[in-house]
Amino acid sequence: MASPLTRNAIEEAYSRIFKLIHRTPVLTSTSIDGIIGSGKQLFFKCENFQKTGSFKSRGALNAILKAKEHGEVKGVITQSSGNHGQALAWAANKIGVPCIVVVPINAPIPKVEAIAAYGAQIERCEATMTARLETCERIANETGYLSIDPHNDYDVMEGQGTIAKEFLEQVPDLDALFIAVGGGGMIGGISKYISEVNPKIKVFCVEPEGKEIQKSFEAGKRLWESGALLNTIADGVRVLRVGDKCFPVLQECCQKRVFSVNDEEISKAMFITMQRLKVVIEPSAAVCLAAVLKYRDELKEFQKIGIVLCGGNVDLNKMPF
Amino acid sequence: MASPLTRNAIEEAYSRIFKLIHRTPVLTSTSIDGIIGSGKQLFFKCENFQKTGSFKSRGALNAILKAKEHGEVKGVITQSSGNHGQALAWAANKIGVPCIVVVPINAPIPKVEAIAAYGAQIERCEATMTARLETCERIANETGYLSIDPHNDYDVMEGQGTIAKEFLEQVPDLDALFIAVGGGGMIGGISKYISEVNPKIKVFCVEPEGKEIQKSFEAGKRLWESGALLNTIADGVRVLRVGDKCFPVLQECCQKRVFSVNDEEISKAMFITMQRLKVVIEPSAAVCLAAVLKYRDELKEFQKIGIVLCGGNVDLNKMPF
Repeated sequence: MASPLTRNAIEEAYSRIFKLIHRTPVLTSTSIDGIIGSGKQLFFKCENFQKTGSFKSRGALNAILKAKEHGEVKGVITQSSGNHGQALAWAANKIGVPCIVVVPINAPIPKVEAIAAYGAQIERCEATMTARLETCERIANETGYLSIDPHNDYDVMEGQGTIAKEFLEQVPDLDALFIAVGGGGMIGGISKYISEVNPKIKVFCVEPEGKEIQKSFEAGKRLWESGALLNTIADGVRVLRVGDKCFPVLQECCQKRVFSVNDEEISKAMFITMQRLKVVIEPSAAVCLAAVLKYRDELKEFQKIGIVLCGGNVDLNKMPF
Repeated sequence: MASPLTRNAIEEAYSRIFKLIHRTPVLTSTSIDGIIGSGKQLFFKCENFQKTGSFKSRGALNAILKAKEHGEVKGVITQSSGNHGQALAWAANKIGVPCIVVVPINAPIPKVEAIAAYGAQIERCEATMTARLETCERIANETGYLSIDPHNDYDVMEGQGTIAKEFLEQVPDLDALFIAVGGGGMIGGISKYISEVNPKIKVFCVEPEGKEIQKSFEAGKRLWESGALLNTIADGVRVLRVGDKCFPVLQECCQKRVFSVNDEEISKAMFITMQRLKVVIEPSAAVCLAAVLKYRDELKEFQKIGIVLCGGNVDLNKMPF
């Protein structure tokens, strides 16, 4: 079956959501460019300024609005202790649809409070991915609510792809884009859009060490068996496995060279971003600068590099640096 | 003598500097608006993203470029351990003019290094305002360099006034503007521009406690006798005295009700700005949100309030919260 994820679908998603989301600015820093050297220019798309503090609002909003176009939506449900939970709660609230978010019992209280503050109902479950998915499915069946996955969902990917549409309008002549990969929803939408609109722009996956996307690329199939979480400070991309709807898009549209970074490198890049670019980001948003810093000698052919600062939801009293 | 500070002069300053400075974005936060309440909307003009991390680059650049239009500039000099020092060093470097910055011996090393990194020559002096001013004047006389004051200079005020030009283009229907006052250069330029372009917008002075601008307004003259520094975490506005060229502009163009805030209030507002708006600011840039939070019951008639986030040069390892 052909994937429904296309440039047209992403542009339709944009028409659907643009009035309720921020067109986030692109910032640059001569000082960070100086640290990278070799005349490279970095362009930072500030999705940390997006509604709810992360790009996730785009996909969540698109999924709900699109479902409503196809009939009544009784309510929506997801499992997430992080940005997708907040984003879905916010979007449901905006549209006037009930929302349930399943969170593990060990989820940080501020995150749960943020989700509840957007008006969502919280349901607790055991702190395993299996329990989270099962609880979500059970309640969806009981309530008839629409379950919206954080990444493994074409409507969500379409919404995230609108980042690329804006980014190309703001900086048309990028040479490469570096995107942090968790479940693969954001890079799925972005890389698909880029591949149709300007395939000269190379899209690279960046991951926390241990995820090993490149091995799956080389094997030609998803090698992850478990729904485990990586041990990384980049909590926004700690889900180990790339979704089965996302992975084929990455295979088709991304470069096969994958860049990996560790906590120390992420923490350093986070500090540089906050100190020099003057924006507050969460660790996941520092993953790509960490990769550009670490692998710059390998990136000689790319002058203009785009980075998506995916979110800014971080506890300022618990910084990793 | 009529002041040379006019709308036209500010617009000419804009034409002079706009290619080298950032047109900084205006950010909003539903979450901060919710904290303020009463349906108020706050608009944050992000001069923390400006070149060198503060609005000071506008005034410094305008002063040098304008001087060059009137003849050769051998070099420029100022005394500053803070943002103006960095800004003048940066602007001089951009234009290719030598620059000397006089800094007190107790100036923080990172700030001095930042000034030196832009290529300026550093001259040390005793840590009193008298020593700073005298050293600056002596070296200016010896070298023939043009001395550019951080605020008490019409060319500098013109440059800072360009913030208002951009802000009104970005948000034309503000009801009020809250501006932190140090020496009075920024609010001088901004309030003059507003008074000529849209006098319906009320411009309010906000100060760290102890400055007592309102007393000088009531006396109809500058009551400050010393060049002392206030003891405040808002180091960008700690100079006690408003300049003699700035004060008449404030008398003419600003509201006579002055708002004062203390360190605790500034620190809280700084935390809220960073956590909710996701931008890194220095304490001086939190002074105005602190005032809006503290005095909101007095501000019933104002719905759309503009705030200039004046700078983002803060040591992330030494946050006040």
